[in-house]
Amino acid sequence: MSKYDIIVLGSGPGGYVTAIRASQLGFKTAIIEKESLGGVCLNWGCIPTKALLKSAQVFEYLKHAEDYGLTVKDAGSDFGKVIERSRGVADGMSKGVQFLMKKNKIDVINGFGKLKPGKKVDVDGKEYSADHIVIATGARSRELPNLKQDGKKVIGYREAMSLKSMPKSMIVVGSGAIGVEFAHFYNSMGTEVTIVEFLPNLVPLEDEEVSKQFERSFKKAGIKVMTNSSVEKLDTSGKTVKATVKTQKGEETLEAEIVLSAVGISSNLENIGLEDVGIVVDRDKIMVNDWYQTNIPGYYAIGDVVPGPALAHVASAEGITCVEKIAGMHVEAIDYGNIPGCTYATPEIASVGMTEKQAKEAGYELKIGKFPFSASGKASAAGTKDGFVKVIFDAKYGEWLGCHMIGAGVTDMIAEAVLGRKLETTGHEVLKAIHPHPTMSEAVMEAVADAYGEVIHL
Amino acid sequence: MSKYDIIVLGSGPGGYVTAIRASQLGFKTAIIEKESLGGVCLNWGCIPTKALLKSAQVFEYLKHAEDYGLTVKDAGSDFGKVIERSRGVADGMSKGVQFLMKKNKIDVINGFGKLKPGKKVDVDGKEYSADHIVIATGARSRELPNLKQDGKKVIGYREAMSLKSMPKSMIVVGSGAIGVEFAHFYNSMGTEVTIVEFLPNLVPLEDEEVSKQFERSFKKAGIKVMTNSSVEKLDTSGKTVKATVKTQKGEETLEAEIVLSAVGISSNLENIGLEDVGIVVDRDKIMVNDWYQTNIPGYYAIGDVVPGPALAHVASAEGITCVEKIAGMHVEAIDYGNIPGCTYATPEIASVGMTEKQAKEAGYELKIGKFPFSASGKASAAGTKDGFVKVIFDAKYGEWLGCHMIGAGVTDMIAEAVLGRKLETTGHEVLKAIHPHPTMSEAVMEAVADAYGEVIHL
Repeated sequence: MSKYDIIVLGSGPGGYVTAIRASQLGFKTAIIEKESLGGVCLNWGCIPTKALLKSAQVFEYLKHAEDYGLTVKDAGSDFGKVIERSRGVADGMSKGVQFLMKKNKIDVINGFGKLKPGKKVDVDGKEYSADHIVIATGARSRELPNLKQDGKKVIGYREAMSLKSMPKSMIVVGSGAIGVEFAHFYNSMGTEVTIVEFLPNLVPLEDEEVSKQFERSFKKAGIKVMTNSSVEKLDTSGKTVKATVKTQKGEETLEAEIVLSAVGISSNLENIGLEDVGIVVDRDKIMVNDWYQTNIPGYYAIGDVVPGPALAHVASAEGITCVEKIAGMHVEAIDYGNIPGCTYATPEIASVGMTEKQAKEAGYELKIGKFPFSASGKASAAGTKDGFVKVIFDAKYGEWLGCHMIGAGVTDMIAEAVLGRKLETTGHEVLKAIHPHPTMSEAVMEAVADAYGEVIHL
Repeated sequence: MSKYDIIVLGSGPGGYVTAIRASQLGFKTAIIEKESLGGVCLNWGCIPTKALLKSAQVFEYLKHAEDYGLTVKDAGSDFGKVIERSRGVADGMSKGVQFLMKKNKIDVINGFGKLKPGKKVDVDGKEYSADHIVIATGARSRELPNLKQDGKKVIGYREAMSLKSMPKSMIVVGSGAIGVEFAHFYNSMGTEVTIVEFLPNLVPLEDEEVSKQFERSFKKAGIKVMTNSSVEKLDTSGKTVKATVKTQKGEETLEAEIVLSAVGISSNLENIGLEDVGIVVDRDKIMVNDWYQTNIPGYYAIGDVVPGPALAHVASAEGITCVEKIAGMHVEAIDYGNIPGCTYATPEIASVGMTEKQAKEAGYELKIGKFPFSASGKASAAGTKDGFVKVIFDAKYGEWLGCHMIGAGVTDMIAEAVLGRKLETTGHEVLKAIHPHPTMSEAVMEAVADAYGEVIHL
């Protein structure tokens, strides 16, 4: 039986990052993966979708070339090649993880790992043991009874990024990041897209003003948006899918080639031996403390299988925190109030901290500032005037409670707010940190200025 | 004679921002402009060049559509329309400043202002007085004796952004931001471009590794680069220009339709009455203290006419500082060590703080980290793998001495470093500020991790 210091179960951005950090800290480390290194994120999530969205972005430029003084004939997309490029990017990244495992001398064990009591893992009949076992098995597309996925006409994100041909029409159920990113992609490619969202707003976790702006942009792009609506049943007996949708005005029947279910995720907790070991699970999540220790000593869990936002960067941070703590380092617990979230549709959305509604509900008195990109010189020059930056400060002590951005490139701009909030910046300090001109990032400075009555360009 | 609290001479990003902040603070304010509101930046600099560069970016996408699984026939550019779009953006921004002046109740005085003793300004024969006069007359393209601009075959930035037709060939002299931005733009459009730089590196103010990477990218894009070279003389007698270039290997004669002189700027100090008032000027710059007061009470100067980097955002910040001080506010002097600089060619460059060479020369012991975009998932997905983020820390006390970025979108990413440095962040704090995945901004976190031996994806 092979013995390790640390065994990581699952090689997504939680697991492989955990393994690398463990190896850096001197632990003899193994990682178990039943499929491709990199997990969903690299192979079927974050990365390949960004490749698809890049093709969509370039296609939009082709379609609007005239706006930039350019000319083009017969702009078209080769759907198969767009998918192929995306798969190629994913494969490249997975190979990259393979390289990192080798470089960090991490043993990669291919197979399905099942936890055993006594800090052991069985992988397809072979047993391994470790002082510490980190569960990072991630999640999969959630299946609802009325949205049973058949993988053909009713699909999840996985099929959505590897369809053989472009569907003429698609119903996207759910408008979180996954739903709206695919809605945007397929709409750009030429598919007729309808989004059905149960809640009153698209991207319902975002600040309401962001949701409203996003809905306007989506509608302008030609996407049909149905909020306050739910898919009651699907009829897949014909050539297309007929969806019965309950709206506030009554029932409606939609018809489309494909229904994409993007109604959230389910943790991968089945058959991995949690019960055998006695690890406590509550409502689809493994219970852990600040250092990701489960109730059973020597067993840890991170990423989508534990409570908290199911995001790649969170999983990575949790894994690093977990092994640094095991190594006896002085570790700070993750501040779940300072986790950025990003959506990569057009327009992009990036946010961190409280929404206006949350901040009000928490009883704060607020100073709110907003700067629209329509007033930004860089946005004018780039032709990306949709969107804004909104900042929320506590009026009393000046704490930066939240930052909400919608517009071109904002997913690369939110880091400033994350770092600023981590360092407990005041608005004044953001204001006096000279932002380069002309950039989209000036909108952060201006939004803060607006909150304090000092905005220049409004 | 009209009497104001504050008169601002010049309406560039220094002047108009000063005027707005002055008005916000309750001062009766006037601004004097001889040409278009917004000055060079809005009308002939930052903004219209970004519009041109956006057209170039889209044109590159058109030319490489296949890389993204897209098809296109006859991708072309209509040079006139590209220029027209850029002029339209500039006009729109200038009108925006006009709106801001009106909204802030700032009197706009059209004409050439000349300072008079006794805190007066003469504008084409009419006299105005104020308690405080802020000189913000900016700068223009510098003329060298061997690069005499005739505005036709030998031009400055102003003509370069309004040529009637695309030149077949162009020699760009000087490789600061202005030079390389135009070199990139014209090369993209189809002009055969040669850059002649006197110093050993392109963008010579940047960290040497950035310069080297930039040169590689430029050469790959087909731009001819001559460093350690200088234009000795120009012969404009024929249809084209013949340039005698002194290189390390001897003299060479280049021929091109157009020579663009981008060898820096000269302050606009002539005929504005500095001598009459007795304001001290040293080597093309007005001497001021931390609050932008000249030697003569009541006269201030900001922007390109004072020492320090000649950048729009610096001019704006100086103007704000100047009037806030006049208003008696508690003001912090600008930290000139924390001014970001951006270059918007492809790849983009953004940097703040010391280069490696400067930090070494200053006697620091360094911790240096570097993360290439080739290892970034987002960059792979977006097809923008050129470039890197480099961070420089003081090994002893952990101060973040410098941050240097080259690659797609980095001009919107440098704000994080500026704010972090202002807040005296440690590397550890940057590392533990969770950056969203997948973004280009993760490269900042990873570069810092690299500096401290904790990088994950290398």
